[in-house]
Amino acid sequence: MPLVSKRGNELTQSPIRSLIPYAREAKENGKHVYHLNIGQPDILTPKAALDSLKTFNDEIIEYGQSEGKVSLREAVASYYETFGAFIEPEDVLVSTGASEAILFALFSCFDSGEDIIIPEPFYANYIGFAQVTGIHMIPVPSEIEKGFALPSIESFRNRITKRTRAIFLCNPGNPTGNLYSKEELTQLAQLIVEEDLFLIVDEVYREFCYDEAFTSVLSIKGLEQHVLVIDSISKVFSSCGSRIGYLVTRNEELRLTLLKFGQLRLCAPMIGQHMAESCYPGRVAYVAQVREEYNSRRLYLHSRLSKMKGVKCYMPKAAFYIMAELPVNDAEQFCKWLLTDFEIDGATIMLAPGDGFYIHKVAGKKQARIAFVLDVQKLEKAMDILEQSLLAYQLVMSDQELEEVYK
Amino acid sequence: MPLVSKRGNELTQSPIRSLIPYAREAKENGKHVYHLNIGQPDILTPKAALDSLKTFNDEIIEYGQSEGKVSLREAVASYYETFGAFIEPEDVLVSTGASEAILFALFSCFDSGEDIIIPEPFYANYIGFAQVTGIHMIPVPSEIEKGFALPSIESFRNRITKRTRAIFLCNPGNPTGNLYSKEELTQLAQLIVEEDLFLIVDEVYREFCYDEAFTSVLSIKGLEQHVLVIDSISKVFSSCGSRIGYLVTRNEELRLTLLKFGQLRLCAPMIGQHMAESCYPGRVAYVAQVREEYNSRRLYLHSRLSKMKGVKCYMPKAAFYIMAELPVNDAEQFCKWLLTDFEIDGATIMLAPGDGFYIHKVAGKKQARIAFVLDVQKLEKAMDILEQSLLAYQLVMSDQELEEVYK
Repeated sequence: MPLVSKRGNELTQSPIRSLIPYAREAKENGKHVYHLNIGQPDILTPKAALDSLKTFNDEIIEYGQSEGKVSLREAVASYYETFGAFIEPEDVLVSTGASEAILFALFSCFDSGEDIIIPEPFYANYIGFAQVTGIHMIPVPSEIEKGFALPSIESFRNRITKRTRAIFLCNPGNPTGNLYSKEELTQLAQLIVEEDLFLIVDEVYREFCYDEAFTSVLSIKGLEQHVLVIDSISKVFSSCGSRIGYLVTRNEELRLTLLKFGQLRLCAPMIGQHMAESCYPGRVAYVAQVREEYNSRRLYLHSRLSKMKGVKCYMPKAAFYIMAELPVNDAEQFCKWLLTDFEIDGATIMLAPGDGFYIHKVAGKKQARIAFVLDVQKLEKAMDILEQSLLAYQLVMSDQELEEVYK
Repeated sequence: MPLVSKRGNELTQSPIRSLIPYAREAKENGKHVYHLNIGQPDILTPKAALDSLKTFNDEIIEYGQSEGKVSLREAVASYYETFGAFIEPEDVLVSTGASEAILFALFSCFDSGEDIIIPEPFYANYIGFAQVTGIHMIPVPSEIEKGFALPSIESFRNRITKRTRAIFLCNPGNPTGNLYSKEELTQLAQLIVEEDLFLIVDEVYREFCYDEAFTSVLSIKGLEQHVLVIDSISKVFSSCGSRIGYLVTRNEELRLTLLKFGQLRLCAPMIGQHMAESCYPGRVAYVAQVREEYNSRRLYLHSRLSKMKGVKCYMPKAAFYIMAELPVNDAEQFCKWLLTDFEIDGATIMLAPGDGFYIHKVAGKKQARIAFVLDVQKLEKAMDILEQSLLAYQLVMSDQELEEVYK
């Protein structure tokens, strides 16, 4: 029997992958599982988007342009103006979700064996994308005590070598819920220009900032030739399954290179593009309402977590995640135990173990990502379960494990 | 300004890419261009598929399973039975078009630096996919005189080294319109088993066979652990823009590896999957009608081409392409000249230059791919233009060029 490739064999999987069989078993045994582990919003997709499917009148679902529908690119360019980012429709390439955008970005900015510098924790799938493109991820630690704020500029500078091609950020942050300020980004911009690097920023959570305004790197002067933004309608318009994302850059050479990868796969999904277009006209009211909903959840979640003994947390500024440190010696074991050995009134919770969001696994060993993709009523039950489970788990841990927790 | 990657810079583009500006200019100057250069059918998408969009009732367009919708995988497995390929729904992974399927296949079967053996000419984008995955394409010449039939088994065997992981076929063939027979495939199967290779077959044109029945490699005994089929609804159901394809294999280890790449990009487009599902119930009548339409065009095209002086052609057995050899010294120059310097009654034609479908460029230098994606009435005009233009081009070529044509 022929064997699969080494790179296929060694490809790192999602941090929740190992838990899925246990979640399935729990459900088969009749347990209800509150999913706080995934970035799948429970928010309704805009009605205009769903209605647009009913008025899709093409008689042939043809290939479109590899760069995306002109009318969609115009809508996106105009949308970005509201963030102080004045770009042309030509600067926008439509991708098959942010996932494809990340792949094209890495292929276009890096050759195999080159380095990307990235604050950790980060979106876990970046690891897989770096692996398939042969890129070394050079992590810069950020600290839970500071709410995972941008690490010092020096800590980025210290990691730059002749193999470094780009700094990569996720802003607002998944899994951290952090938001980088205009000041932080402007400082980083200087380094980017000095070292002549690309600055690639995943801005898919851009609409969900609760206390401060969002700063897109597209709005920062002097970075025009350096910035590549990755975006998506998945989270903003609760349309993850439509697989529509964007690559935005004013760097023409980069854009033409990204487009070559786009041409190789012919085009992004055309029905999804048609749908995406219809999201923009009514977006202000829609997004305001969604933001308010997430904000209530955020405040509730934080109020509960901050009262739990031994839990280290912070107020997330954006997105719909919090990365909490739990009083356990191994969060993955704890997450598994939640599914296999714990329940209250026939229900349990599923969290994403923290170490999958790190290169330095040990830094995330006691952490877990909690997504607030359930309404406050459900979050209340989920937090009751978490609170009780943490107490119960103290009794399960050995003395040695307890020592690891409180050392 | 930071520079793009070498791999981005060096990525080979589609053979028609260089002609696009000339086609655009021709149109801007008021010329009508008959597009025989692309694989975009003019056939209507099944009405059931278009109607299915109007009954898409999800309120949230959520991520689906990375392997694809269960109901779609069931429909596909059952569809394959009609080709004598008895597979389980679990053997089918839904991809974002055949393009993504090719990428996942190469990542999963090959490490960088390994070899893939493939008859040429082949679908031009395979070159780009091999480049981004770092795979060496080892072409096996096939001959226009034999209608690009499968090269001898020995010619495959002679190219196998310790770096070889798979033989790759496109059956029915793009750009050739050839169909590999059961006998040819069975002979190749022996070699595959002997050498313990994967056999990857792109079967996206499977429904358009005009004289003989199609043999899927999934129906060949003994190849169960070796075969990986790439498929798509793009051509069969004239739904190129929906971006729905399939990866089909009974090799469990391979399937789990392919799925890891699938998980990295989360899921294939969900609305497209919903639409794809609705294509299957009425497929027999739909496909029969489409096949008949293509068949009329095929017969017409062949009758015209075979009467043109100096044109070398053959009767394509399948798909909707013919790779013709033209009495010109450089088909790319001729294709450009058609757009810039030739017209009849304000119209011209666009063809795909042949050399882009070859590694050995010189073998395709006088060839062009003609797609019969226009109805017979339009094909008549297009063939009039081709006939006249070839005569006119004789006068344009220098003595030296003419000598190259007729040597």
